[in-house]
Amino acid sequence: MHVPGLSQQRIVQIERDILGKNDELAQVNRARFAAARVFALNLVSSPGAGKTALLVKTISDLKGIRPIAVIEGDQQTSNDAERIRATGAPAIQVNTGKGCHLDASMVGDAFARLPAIDGGLLFIENVGNLVCPAAFDLGEAHKVVVFSTTEGEDKPLKYPDMFAASSLMLINKIDLVPNLDFDLARTVEYARRVNPKIEVLTVSAKTGEGMKAFYAWIAKRAASLAADAAE
Amino acid sequence: MHVPGLSQQRIVQIERDILGKNDELAQVNRARFAAARVFALNLVSSPGAGKTALLVKTISDLKGIRPIAVIEGDQQTSNDAERIRATGAPAIQVNTGKGCHLDASMVGDAFARLPAIDGGLLFIENVGNLVCPAAFDLGEAHKVVVFSTTEGEDKPLKYPDMFAASSLMLINKIDLVPNLDFDLARTVEYARRVNPKIEVLTVSAKTGEGMKAFYAWIAKRAASLAADAAE
Repeated sequence: MHVPGLSQQRIVQIERDILGKNDELAQVNRARFAAARVFALNLVSSPGAGKTALLVKTISDLKGIRPIAVIEGDQQTSNDAERIRATGAPAIQVNTGKGCHLDASMVGDAFARLPAIDGGLLFIENVGNLVCPAAFDLGEAHKVVVFSTTEGEDKPLKYPDMFAASSLMLINKIDLVPNLDFDLARTVEYARRVNPKIEVLTVSAKTGEGMKAFYAWIAKRAASLAADAAE
Repeated sequence: MHVPGLSQQRIVQIERDILGKNDELAQVNRARFAAARVFALNLVSSPGAGKTALLVKTISDLKGIRPIAVIEGDQQTSNDAERIRATGAPAIQVNTGKGCHLDASMVGDAFARLPAIDGGLLFIENVGNLVCPAAFDLGEAHKVVVFSTTEGEDKPLKYPDMFAASSLMLINKIDLVPNLDFDLARTVEYARRVNPKIEVLTVSAKTGEGMKAFYAWIAKRAASLAADAAE
């Protein structure tokens, strides 16, 4: 796209400056999370893949074990933060307006407004979008891409940056598979084609199927991060 | 977001310049479509809402009636263009790379590469994304937002720009409703709250339910555009 008064080279430079500034702030967030022994996950997906339902189920099951807080991103509304607060966990809603992703600055500001959750879990639910959030580090330990069985197998190939950036793919709505033409093996093959290291779990936030394996993954990855920090 | 060497005012100006330039090129596209009596629709949705399946069904049913061509947008792959070409209709795939939407320049270039479809239908399938494509006019007669019953009722409130920009909401995968907790009336109410004029049709690309009403909508809107042009 041509912009009056700006060369293509300058536009590329501006994009680099924005990402560079974001990465600096993400490192500040990461240091803050480490200082408070907080394990942070950045949940990304298409709109409607079921991130909020997954979080509601996860918080209900884990809230007695360690402190949990949530930062919610959406263009508009505070619906998701309200659904989270109904579980008893604190939640801050960030509205991005015209923006298609959370950035590290928004997350740093929101984290500062949350009550302390030292030694706990921070879930960051990004704007539902398989493109923009891929490029923005928020300071999280891992990106987790939530993928619904209703979305079609080829999404990892069509939106490769997001699947390349994620450590875990949660295939949600597994309870709907009997009513769909969904090829699980092909979905996993496509995800591994863009990211050979991606881990995969199948879950249903609705029925609870597979959720224990997700909690075990969180415990293992949080322990591993804490061990790295102690070295 | 702070960008070294650029004031916030300058960043807002750059965004305006990009949209302004896009709008100019969209008007050029619109004039080209009018000159060839082509009725163009810009299909927008979340990833996996079923835009391509809807187009495959639509082309199969309408291809004997008037010429049809498709411009496909995706970050990566030419899967969708291949699915369209299997119906016999010409299709051009545009890969947006890091980009989260088609722009008028991409559509103008792709239209020039398609065979002539004078008096026909042009379907532009945008990148699966409920945020970015809302702001970019491609020269289409109407934006049509495809919404899947699996996505949850509150998406029109969370992504209001897209529903405000669309003339028609196609609620797809209506065949799955018996297996879901989906409240159709509430979805329509939320969509009308952000856009009182939006028309709504329920369809299933898989079973064909409701598709005739969509074809009737196309015929009516295309006739109305042609009548306006003749005035």
